[in-house]
Formats: sequence, structure tokens, C-alpha cells
Amino acid sequence: MTERSSERPFPRREGFSFVMEKSHALPLPSDAKENPEIADVSPLCTSALRFSSLFKERALQEGQGIVASPEESVHLVGPRVGVLRFGEVEVETPAFMPVGTVGSVKALSPDDVEDIGYRLILGNTYHLALRPGVELLQEFGGLHAFMGWKGALLTDSGGFQVMSLAKLRKLKEEGVTFANHLNGARLSLTPESVVGLQDSIDSDIQMVLDECTPHPATFEDARSSMERSMRWAARARQGRTEKTRAQFGIVQGGMFGPLRAQSARAITALDFEGVAVGGLSVGETKEEMRRVLCATAPFLPHHKPRYLMGVGAPDDLVDAVLLGIDMFDCVMPTRNARNGTVFVRTAAQPSGKLHIKNSMHRDAKGPLDPECRCKTCRTFSRAYLRHLFVAEELLVHRLLTIHSLTFLYDLMAELRTALRQDNPWESVASVRARYVGPTPAAAG
Amino acid sequence: MTERSSERPFPRREGFSFVMEKSHALPLPSDAKENPEIADVSPLCTSALRFSSLFKERALQEGQGIVASPEESVHLVGPRVGVLRFGEVEVETPAFMPVGTVGSVKALSPDDVEDIGYRLILGNTYHLALRPGVELLQEFGGLHAFMGWKGALLTDSGGFQVMSLAKLRKLKEEGVTFANHLNGARLSLTPESVVGLQDSIDSDIQMVLDECTPHPATFEDARSSMERSMRWAARARQGRTEKTRAQFGIVQGGMFGPLRAQSARAITALDFEGVAVGGLSVGETKEEMRRVLCATAPFLPHHKPRYLMGVGAPDDLVDAVLLGIDMFDCVMPTRNARNGTVFVRTAAQPSGKLHIKNSMHRDAKGPLDPECRCKTCRTFSRAYLRHLFVAEELLVHRLLTIHSLTFLYDLMAELRTALRQDNPWESVASVRARYVGPTPAAAG
Repeated sequence: MTERSSERPFPRREGFSFVMEKSHALPLPSDAKENPEIADVSPLCTSALRFSSLFKERALQEGQGIVASPEESVHLVGPRVGVLRFGEVEVETPAFMPVGTVGSVKALSPDDVEDIGYRLILGNTYHLALRPGVELLQEFGGLHAFMGWKGALLTDSGGFQVMSLAKLRKLKEEGVTFANHLNGARLSLTPESVVGLQDSIDSDIQMVLDECTPHPATFEDARSSMERSMRWAARARQGRTEKTRAQFGIVQGGMFGPLRAQSARAITALDFEGVAVGGLSVGETKEEMRRVLCATAPFLPHHKPRYLMGVGAPDDLVDAVLLGIDMFDCVMPTRNARNGTVFVRTAAQPSGKLHIKNSMHRDAKGPLDPECRCKTCRTFSRAYLRHLFVAEELLVHRLLTIHSLTFLYDLMAELRTALRQDNPWESVASVRARYVGPTPAAAG
Repeated sequence: MTERSSERPFPRREGFSFVMEKSHALPLPSDAKENPEIADVSPLCTSALRFSSLFKERALQEGQGIVASPEESVHLVGPRVGVLRFGEVEVETPAFMPVGTVGSVKALSPDDVEDIGYRLILGNTYHLALRPGVELLQEFGGLHAFMGWKGALLTDSGGFQVMSLAKLRKLKEEGVTFANHLNGARLSLTPESVVGLQDSIDSDIQMVLDECTPHPATFEDARSSMERSMRWAARARQGRTEKTRAQFGIVQGGMFGPLRAQSARAITALDFEGVAVGGLSVGETKEEMRRVLCATAPFLPHHKPRYLMGVGAPDDLVDAVLLGIDMFDCVMPTRNARNGTVFVRTAAQPSGKLHIKNSMHRDAKGPLDPECRCKTCRTFSRAYLRHLFVAEELLVHRLLTIHSLTFLYDLMAELRTALRQDNPWESVASVRARYVGPTPAAAG
């Protein structure tokens, strides 16, 4: 038998750093006149660069009243390439992170995930605290050892469940108490206790407890929710321990630019090792997500990793990378795969999506995506995959998930390659065209 | 990435042969007095050797009237070790064959199966004819190419479904017509058409169409069912084509020794490339299965591979190997694994079975079976596997199936090693003790 990653030793993990290799400011509209590629990278890009140029020109006011004082450090928006270092484990950014909510990236073994190239995946503190319980994880020396994962782990705090399990929880200033979704037993989380839980999990990146603001929300509701999340963030920062490797704050503020700016300032002031943008991908339109991200990005600290939570559609990934996001996670790519829908390059299917159950694949000898390097595409025809899906064979979930995660890994890898160039815009547009489709005409 | 079996080329498959490396006659009771190990190998062994010694002494009559004429070649019963050759694909016997009913060994990829060591798996003609259809398989160059399986394939004929789908089929002398279990459309199988279907599948070993006699059955019902199966066997033999690589006949006869003897004679006379014993493991007791096998074994041709259909429990495998069976298949090991029950060596669990859901495994740091070489046991604790099972994570099905199939592979491999010795009995008893448990006291 050849060496499998399950035979390789666990690399040493210690410390945390983010090294920015290169960053780009989105060019100004005036530059776009000389270089038409720029404006075409994406409509988002156009919108973002208009927004950032407003700041460059010290236009101190926008939309619902974002005000940057002349003294405030407001950062130009643009994509970056870098590396997250966890001792011997290194993760190049921008990076997508597969989700392994309860200690398993669904349908895959840890070496499947590692073989694709991933070195950083997600766990969820709320779910792990319920099952198998953090005491058990601690007994095993943490989640890595328990699940046999040799890379790094980021754990979400349970803040998303404050929204998604709204009917099962009570929210107070002190924290949140869940009647847990498995058996109704109570589970209380506070900003401080969540640090302790994540310490026990041995998480490499801890997310602070927050409230993922529901959508839609009034300005007032979004503000009070955000402000509590900021108070919680301060308590979490205060509550970190010697075991806390790295801790990320989370920007909230609903769909309101001024609240986002205010929240970003508050999180920046707490000097976390990284900053996340939460409360997006919660039901808003893609346009709205982009608008909010444009309003948030200039207030995010430049030299820290930035993580956009819950986003994983290829077009959203490209656009958010252009706005300077370094890290992403989303269950959608793996969940869709289990439901028979995978991303493919636009050469394979112009829509970028393939529904394996479609009868057009019944006798298709080709792979899901001829340009894909994944084990599934190297080995199996669409016809076989469709047969497995129709016959409800378990194997199909693993094979489609491997493809979807490889697709996203390679999309991010190609974006990184593009962003290592001095003038990346044409390459980024070409990656976007291959993975997402032609760039839509820039909106006005 | 290291080389995976999916990267290795398909070996050439052509022809079929069975080479017997070594065979042993079960010692006579008189030998057992000198060597107490012999009688202790299993109660079955004692029973079988009493039965075969009856023949040796030309005791021409037994039980319900089996009569062997003095001229008839009646074979002494005993275990054998050999090899099935399919061109570049070789399969050492005795061998267990994993079941891949519709082109997938459930929960595993083809390279998972190959990595364990298997080179011969099963498909099912009835199921494949319905889905994906043999025309499609033919278009892809056969089932091997369609599913990416680099070893050899044996296909069952649909004879088992004549029993298991009894309510959906009409049985006539010509053949059987199913209202298929997926959509009710009619599927007619005849002994001749099943040869054609298996030719299209490019099966390496074809099973003839038969009726797996229901249990219980009266002597008369078992006789008429067996006699029709024998007429079908003759038609199938007549109907083989240039594309038919190897064809196995199937002995039936219910639980009646004389019918089994008669059926074995009929199948032997048709000079198939191999002989199967069907109609066992259909609800009878383990004792009854052994009694019927003892009554059948002496009539099976010595130099041909012998296949006991539907049997895969470790104790049954050991006992049937002692009676001279070379090949086995069973869905039970893989089905049980998906339900959370796996075989383990008796040192790990005296019963030889482990239910992963049991709360005793909640914080168990050890593997399923410390003596097991499988990827699951090398990588994961019982506690993690229990967690995956309780959390209904798909990964657990693959991991438990890999263990169960590795267990059976290694059981058969150790039996082969034992049987390569001149005096194998002590080693066989020791393999039995490790994999099944202490040999029960021989029944009188």
C-alpha cells in the first residue's frame, strides 16, 4: 500500500501569525480609463473602488452617515495574498475553509480533506459542546487528535446558532442559554465560557461569542444587537487565557453601513489576531451583501487576516477577495454536493453548476469537469456518478464532495497565483471567467 | 500526492483457471485419537469427517437415502488452498468476495476495496439490468470500466431475487418475469438471456439462472424447484457464447441431503468452470447449514472452485473452508457495518462482535481491534467512531465497512497460510480461536 496521509505524523502546531505577501489597492475609476480590464473585474470592484476613492478624497460622509474623521486610519480596499502560520502548519490566503461542524467534514475522511490540499477547517463550539462534549475532547488532547486532523482548526463560537436556533435560546446581557436541539437539556454560553470551551477543544483560531443579527432587522434592532456583540467581544478579549492561541473578533451591524463601520472600529480597537465579518449570507441578496462589504472593508485593519463568515459561492468568493477578504467558510458547497449539485468550470457547463441527477448525464462518458484534477474527475464518468446518485449509493456523497471542495481549493489557489503578480487584474478576470462565468457589465 | 490505486492502470483480464496449490482430506476419527487437535478444529469438522469416512468405507447409504454407487467418484472432504487466475488478476482461495450489487461496494470507493487486498467482487445481474441497464454498461466497455474496478467481477444471475422478490415475479419453465421493484416495469430473465446480460456486463464469472429454493420447503417442492434449476443449468451451459469467460453452475436441493447429492451430480455432469452451493443462508439454523454442506461436499468436483453463496459470518467461513469451499460472498458484513456492528478479533471482544453505539465505547481511546491493520483501526479511536455513528455522520459507514472487510480478508488470508502447511489443523484451530472464539466442544 502506498503512503497515505493517515500514515504521516501530526505536524507541530504552535503560535499564530499572518504574513501579508502582497496587497493591492483597487485602482481608482480614473485608472480604469487607461486599463479597461480593471473596471471589468467585477461590478463589485467598480462599486468598491468608487467607495474607497470617496475615502481617498476624504469625502467624509456616505449613505446613512458613515463618518471617518481625518485622523482615523481608513484603509484602501483591495485584494491581498498572504499566509497564516500555525507552527509547522501553513495556510496560504485567500483561503476557503471546509466545514466540519461536529468533527467530520461531511462524507470525507480527514485524509480526503488533506489530500485535496486543505490545512485549515472549521468546527463548531456549540455542536461540539453538545456532542461529543468538550470534556471528552480534552481527554483526547483536543479535537485534532480526536478526529485525526493534522491541519489547523478554527472554531465558530455558537454565535450563528444564536440566530439559527432562535426559538431554542434565551438571550441576556450575560450570555445565551440554549435548550439544546438534541434533547432539550440547557447549555449556557457566555463570552468567557466560550473561550474556555475553545481552549479545551484546542482550537487554533477561536471566534468570539456574538449574535449573528437576524435578517431583516430594523436599524434599531441591528444596532442594539451589534452593540451587545461588541460588549461581548470586549469580554471575550478580556477573558482569553494562556491556552488561547488566536482569537478573532466579529463585525456585526446587519445591513447598515454606519453600524458596520462602528462595529469594525470597535473590533479593531480590541486588537484581535484577526477580524471576521459576520451576519452576512443570512438571506440578503448578493447585491446587498456586496454593498455591506464595501461599507465595511475600509474600516478593517489592514495587517490582520479578514474572514467573511458563511460565504462560499464562487462568485461571492472572487468578489470578496477583491474587497480584501482572506478567509471563508460555508456549508453550501458540501451540502449541495450531497444533494447532487456541484460547481464546475464554465467550460464544462456555462452556468458553473452541474446537477448530476439530470438525465443528460445518463450516458455521459466524460468527468464532471474535464479541467479538474480531483480524484473523482480523474476516475469516474458523469454517467457512473449519476447512477450512484439515482441508486442512492453512499459513495456518491464522498465523490461529489471531493469534487466540490477541490474546485473551491483550486479557485482560491488560482486567485492567489494571480494576486502574486504586480498587476493582477487581467489574471483575476480570467480566473473569474473560468470558474464563475463572464464578468457581468459593471453597474454604472 | 502519493500514488493511489486510482492512478494505477487496469490489469489485463483474460481467460479463467483455477489452480489448486494444496488440498487436505479431513482426517478420519481414528486419526483424531492420535492428534486431539484434529477433532477440535470444529464440531463441523467432526461431523464432516464422520460423513466422509462413511463414504471411504463405502457405506453407501445415509440419512434420507443418498446412494453413491461404487463406480461414482465421491470425494473426500477437506480444505484446499489455490488461486483463481483471470489473466493478470489473481485471487488466492479460499476467498471472501465483497458484494457490490449495483456497481458499488456500499460506502466504499473501488480503491478502498482494492487497498484492502480484494481482487474479486460481486455484481448482480438483475439489479444491474434494471439500473443502469446492461446496454449502458456495454457502451462503457463493461461494468469494470463503468465503476472503475480493476479486479475481476463475479455476477449473480438473479436467481436469489427469484426467492427474495417472490411476490413480484412469475416463474415458468421458460424463465422468470419480474415486475421490477423500482417501477413495476417487466423484466424477463431466461437461462439464455442471463448469459447474454452477463456477457454484456463483461463478467469474469457468470452464475447460471436458478431458483434459490425458499426455506422452509417440503421435499417435493424442493425437488421440483431443484430439478427445474438443473434443466435451466443445462440450458445456460448450452447457451454460453464466445464472450462467456467462466460459468458456474449452482447446486440446489433445499435442506435435503439426497436432493443436494442429486443436484451436485447434475451440475458436475455439465462441466462448468466452477460449482456453487446455493439455497443456503436463507433462514436455516447454522447446524442445518453445516449438515446440508456435509451432505453436499463429497459430491462436488475436486479440481474445480467451489463457491458457497450468501455466507460470510466468520464461524461459517472457517467451517465451510474446512469442508472444501473456496469462495464466499455475503452482504451481512457490510450491511452490519452500516448499522454499527463490526467483527473484531476475540482478544478485543470475546463475542467477536462490537456494537459501536454501545456507551462503553464513549471514551474508549483504543481502536476497534488492536490487532487489525486497517486504515480505520490505524487512525481512529472507538470513541471517535461512536461519536460519528451517534451524530449520523456519513464517514462512519465507510470507516466501519473498511474494518469489516479487512477483518474478513485477513481471516481468509490467515486460513490460506495455515492451509499451505502439510499439517494445518493446529494452525486452523488457532486462526479460528483468534477470529471466531474457542472451538465449541465437538458434538458427539
